[in-house]
Amino acid sequence: MRQAIQNLEESKIREVANAGMGRSDVLAFWFGESDEVTPDFIRQAAIESLQSGETFYSHNLGLPALRDAVAQAMAAKHAGAPGSAPLGAERIAITSGGVNALMLAVQAVVDAGDEVVAVTPVWPNLTAQPLILGAHLRTVALRPQAGAWTLDLDALLAAITPRTKLLIVNAPNNPTGWTLSREEQSAILSHCRRTGTWILADEVYENLYFAPSSNACAPSFLDIAEPADKLMVAHSFSKSYLMTGWRLGWLVLPPSATADIGKLIEFNTSCASVFTQRAGLVALQRRDEVTPRVVRHLQACRDTLVPALQSIPGLQVASPQGGMYAFFELPGHSDSLATAKRLVAEAGLGLAPGLAFAPEAASWLRWCFASKDLGRLTQGVERLREWLRHSSTKG
Amino acid sequence: MRQAIQNLEESKIREVANAGMGRSDVLAFWFGESDEVTPDFIRQAAIESLQSGETFYSHNLGLPALRDAVAQAMAAKHAGAPGSAPLGAERIAITSGGVNALMLAVQAVVDAGDEVVAVTPVWPNLTAQPLILGAHLRTVALRPQAGAWTLDLDALLAAITPRTKLLIVNAPNNPTGWTLSREEQSAILSHCRRTGTWILADEVYENLYFAPSSNACAPSFLDIAEPADKLMVAHSFSKSYLMTGWRLGWLVLPPSATADIGKLIEFNTSCASVFTQRAGLVALQRRDEVTPRVVRHLQACRDTLVPALQSIPGLQVASPQGGMYAFFELPGHSDSLATAKRLVAEAGLGLAPGLAFAPEAASWLRWCFASKDLGRLTQGVERLREWLRHSSTKG
Repeated sequence: MRQAIQNLEESKIREVANAGMGRSDVLAFWFGESDEVTPDFIRQAAIESLQSGETFYSHNLGLPALRDAVAQAMAAKHAGAPGSAPLGAERIAITSGGVNALMLAVQAVVDAGDEVVAVTPVWPNLTAQPLILGAHLRTVALRPQAGAWTLDLDALLAAITPRTKLLIVNAPNNPTGWTLSREEQSAILSHCRRTGTWILADEVYENLYFAPSSNACAPSFLDIAEPADKLMVAHSFSKSYLMTGWRLGWLVLPPSATADIGKLIEFNTSCASVFTQRAGLVALQRRDEVTPRVVRHLQACRDTLVPALQSIPGLQVASPQGGMYAFFELPGHSDSLATAKRLVAEAGLGLAPGLAFAPEAASWLRWCFASKDLGRLTQGVERLREWLRHSSTKG
Repeated sequence: MRQAIQNLEESKIREVANAGMGRSDVLAFWFGESDEVTPDFIRQAAIESLQSGETFYSHNLGLPALRDAVAQAMAAKHAGAPGSAPLGAERIAITSGGVNALMLAVQAVVDAGDEVVAVTPVWPNLTAQPLILGAHLRTVALRPQAGAWTLDLDALLAAITPRTKLLIVNAPNNPTGWTLSREEQSAILSHCRRTGTWILADEVYENLYFAPSSNACAPSFLDIAEPADKLMVAHSFSKSYLMTGWRLGWLVLPPSATADIGKLIEFNTSCASVFTQRAGLVALQRRDEVTPRVVRHLQACRDTLVPALQSIPGLQVASPQGGMYAFFELPGHSDSLATAKRLVAEAGLGLAPGLAFAPEAASWLRWCFASKDLGRLTQGVERLREWLRHSSTKG
């Protein structure tokens, strides 16, 4: 077994969740997953595909109809640099989930020994993947200010040099809710063009965006990039279509990279199941029946959870513009891993420890507010409030 | 884009298949896939799972019930070294297909620069995966003798030294039908114990075995290995259960490796879909209704195809003991890639070129005989016979 693999940390979120295994009384907000089942008409599309016998291999890059639909949906939201050709299917690769999209992208550009820069705190999979490929990883930390996290753009640009093969950035960000501004994206893109650095943008939360915008989604590198830019954007059906368990996502690629990604898909998973792709196609075709409702509900979740948390004395938390997480410190509890385990055991409340996302977030806790029932959120806050009232603060 | 990825060859099988795209008159035997739909009761298990709303993330290593069922099925066939504990669920990881199982295994043990030995001709994915990880690949070629391929065991053992991190071997073999004997497996295992070399055994065809055996499957390294041996065995639901398009497989691992493979699954695909795993579980539970029928039919396919091919003057072909491929040379046609393209265009016959599997097989052709209708096979042979009669032999 490689040392690099042994060194990869097991999920600290799962470490906390395991502490609550088999306890039905725990209110769990630890995973980044809605508790709502995939809409019926999406499931029905997979069922009909199975009934009709679509149980054979698919194209490595996905069903042509799905690639077309993804390209049209992306083109409708992202015009690219002025004068760019509309985003077409030749830039789309269908993958076995968003995490698989990210892994393929890293495999495509990172040789062992290459330098990779990642913005943290971040979903730990994003930093594990380059380590699996043997990369040297440098992290640039966001900085907490009054309960929110912000980018030190100068520090990030200084870290990206001609030796940097790949920049990995996730915005809207899991876990902090931080979102890149258009100006920051422009500065990063220009800088990476100069250094010859690939950008891998994890934009899976782009639709889960609550600030006013012309295209109902967060700023994207695809709004400003040329098709030929060294940019790969990872997406997923999981969040916007309530399809976490399906394992279906996609990459937006420079046209010249698509064939190579197709080879990597062959050698990693060969293809996504046809019946899963049929479900994805219907999800996209009927997205107006799903995503706006999901986003409206998530906003109600956020606007239920955040004020309730803010009403706890000493607890500072910002209202995130995007994503589905509140991220905060508990006054007097600086070891979030220990705190999260105590919250499970003593309060029946399941949160994710900030240490899972970066050392600099070791005193923070992540609360996924994607809850079908808003009452679960207020009930969870009450459990937290009670626990804080009675617990010792030695943690 | 990494040079290593650009250098990976696109599938030469697909190159031939593309030449026949959109032509419904081609009898296609190029892919390693049965033309029979997954049995209804297996599809029904996935449908019921979807209907009941199982659309959420699963455990990285798979559903406990499926891991148990896989372990029991493997233990029933493979006792291991005398005195070994029965093969248990702690040694099973559920993967997104057999190819994904193989990729995870390679990620687990191969650092960039490591030496990997592979036995060829072989399914090209097996040699591509270590190259993606930056390995130095050495191949040891099987040798054709009277239409069949055999292992030079001394040459293989000489190639495996203490510098060899991993041996990759696929038996029953795609494309040649070659199968490892028990004695060869013992010699390889003993040698690899001495050199400290991991063995990655692709045994996905073990059930598709036509020679007499006590356990209705081909000799396996799992029959003779200790649980703690550096052995990873890759399996798939694709062939034995007619589930190619589902992308479901598993690894059998030393117990100490399972947790690390679980981490790699998290960072590659996170998990297989629950509804797909439910289908796999039913396939295993009712395997007596599927696999024996599949194997009997494949044997009938083999025994239809091979004698028909042997009746063509000058064509030598061995009857494979395992797998679902006939592999042969056409007299006077030494460039199999060109020949395969001509066969598509001029005879409406789709075969896979040997060059896809190794340079030493460049004059060979692979015929997948997994055909629901035996008549398609005899019709295909007639097309070949007619084409040979009329074609020039300049190819």
